[in-house]
Amino acid sequence: MSYLGVGVSPGNVPVYHGTNLKVVDWRVRVAELVLRCAICVLGILAAVLIGSDTQVKQIFSIQKKAKFTDMKALVFVVVANGLAAGYSLVQGLRCVVSIVRGTVLFNKPLAWAIFSADQLMAYMMVAAVATALQSSVFAKFGETELQWMKICNLYGKFCNQVGEGIAMALIASLGMVVLSVISAFSLFRLYGGNKVKSSATW
Amino acid sequence: MSYLGVGVSPGNVPVYHGTNLKVVDWRVRVAELVLRCAICVLGILAAVLIGSDTQVKQIFSIQKKAKFTDMKALVFVVVANGLAAGYSLVQGLRCVVSIVRGTVLFNKPLAWAIFSADQLMAYMMVAAVATALQSSVFAKFGETELQWMKICNLYGKFCNQVGEGIAMALIASLGMVVLSVISAFSLFRLYGGNKVKSSATW
Repeated sequence: MSYLGVGVSPGNVPVYHGTNLKVVDWRVRVAELVLRCAICVLGILAAVLIGSDTQVKQIFSIQKKAKFTDMKALVFVVVANGLAAGYSLVQGLRCVVSIVRGTVLFNKPLAWAIFSADQLMAYMMVAAVATALQSSVFAKFGETELQWMKICNLYGKFCNQVGEGIAMALIASLGMVVLSVISAFSLFRLYGGNKVKSSATW
Repeated sequence: MSYLGVGVSPGNVPVYHGTNLKVVDWRVRVAELVLRCAICVLGILAAVLIGSDTQVKQIFSIQKKAKFTDMKALVFVVVANGLAAGYSLVQGLRCVVSIVRGTVLFNKPLAWAIFSADQLMAYMMVAAVATALQSSVFAKFGETELQWMKICNLYGKFCNQVGEGIAMALIASLGMVVLSVISAFSLFRLYGGNKVKSSATW
């Protein structure tokens, strides 16, 4: 059995002989698009929530202002989520074009590039969330052994908004991890042991 | 062209029709074994270096002792590397058995289990190294805006040994990232569009 892809010229066509490959491809592309859109939105929300967060506190005659640049981990999470949002937007557009044109990713160098970028983004976002969570724990509870005092009892509103931003970043990073699995699937199935048949277990 | 796997009975055999698939499989398994052994050794080294690190300091009449449990991020990195070392040992033994028996991973549930565990380990190790690095930056340079004082000028030897441990953990986590790519390859090529031929780009 063989049929042509939809909306592509016969000279530039994935020729299928499998039965449910096209259905799988369709689902993978739609899942990818949904995830990329979600990451884009969540990444922007996280970056804006944390980046715009400030709180001014009057301590006796001194006026102190808390902002996200006071803590390098928050700068990292804002930059990482901004990058992830921009990257997801570009990749989302590629997905839309791919769905509209009905084409399938069979280009190994492109699949490698997408896979590598997705992996990089996923690890960067997980690292950013981990460092931000770590700093938040210091800010919330202090580290008494090191005489690092807790600051969230002083800047409650600031800390709450940062917490919301980190929650968004956490969900976005989990989405990016799932996406990196999808792009690994899209890449490595191209190396499928086509023509391999086996009954061996491992 | 077809040939049988080495050292397996004909009833439980991967039958190849490709030309260089066996060479690729051999290289993948050897690379996997080398990486798992390296991660096991580096993980143990990192955990021992950080876990055994202490320094006693006499400040006037008070005796203060720095240890890794004073900073939760160091506890995380010790636990993560201990887990990774144990996990790599078990997986390394599986690799040895697989190489000795000359079998290839064709069991999808097992490939999924290995892939999932490798992914989990890779993200856990990257997160542990990121949080430990973040805490080390605080310890080394302090965070003046938050009045968190630097402590490495007080506990120089302690900080140096922690730094060495984190360097080991960093290399181990990079190895784990490469391993998770290998296990993604081993899993998703099983989903290869076998019988798909194409000239489409994407």
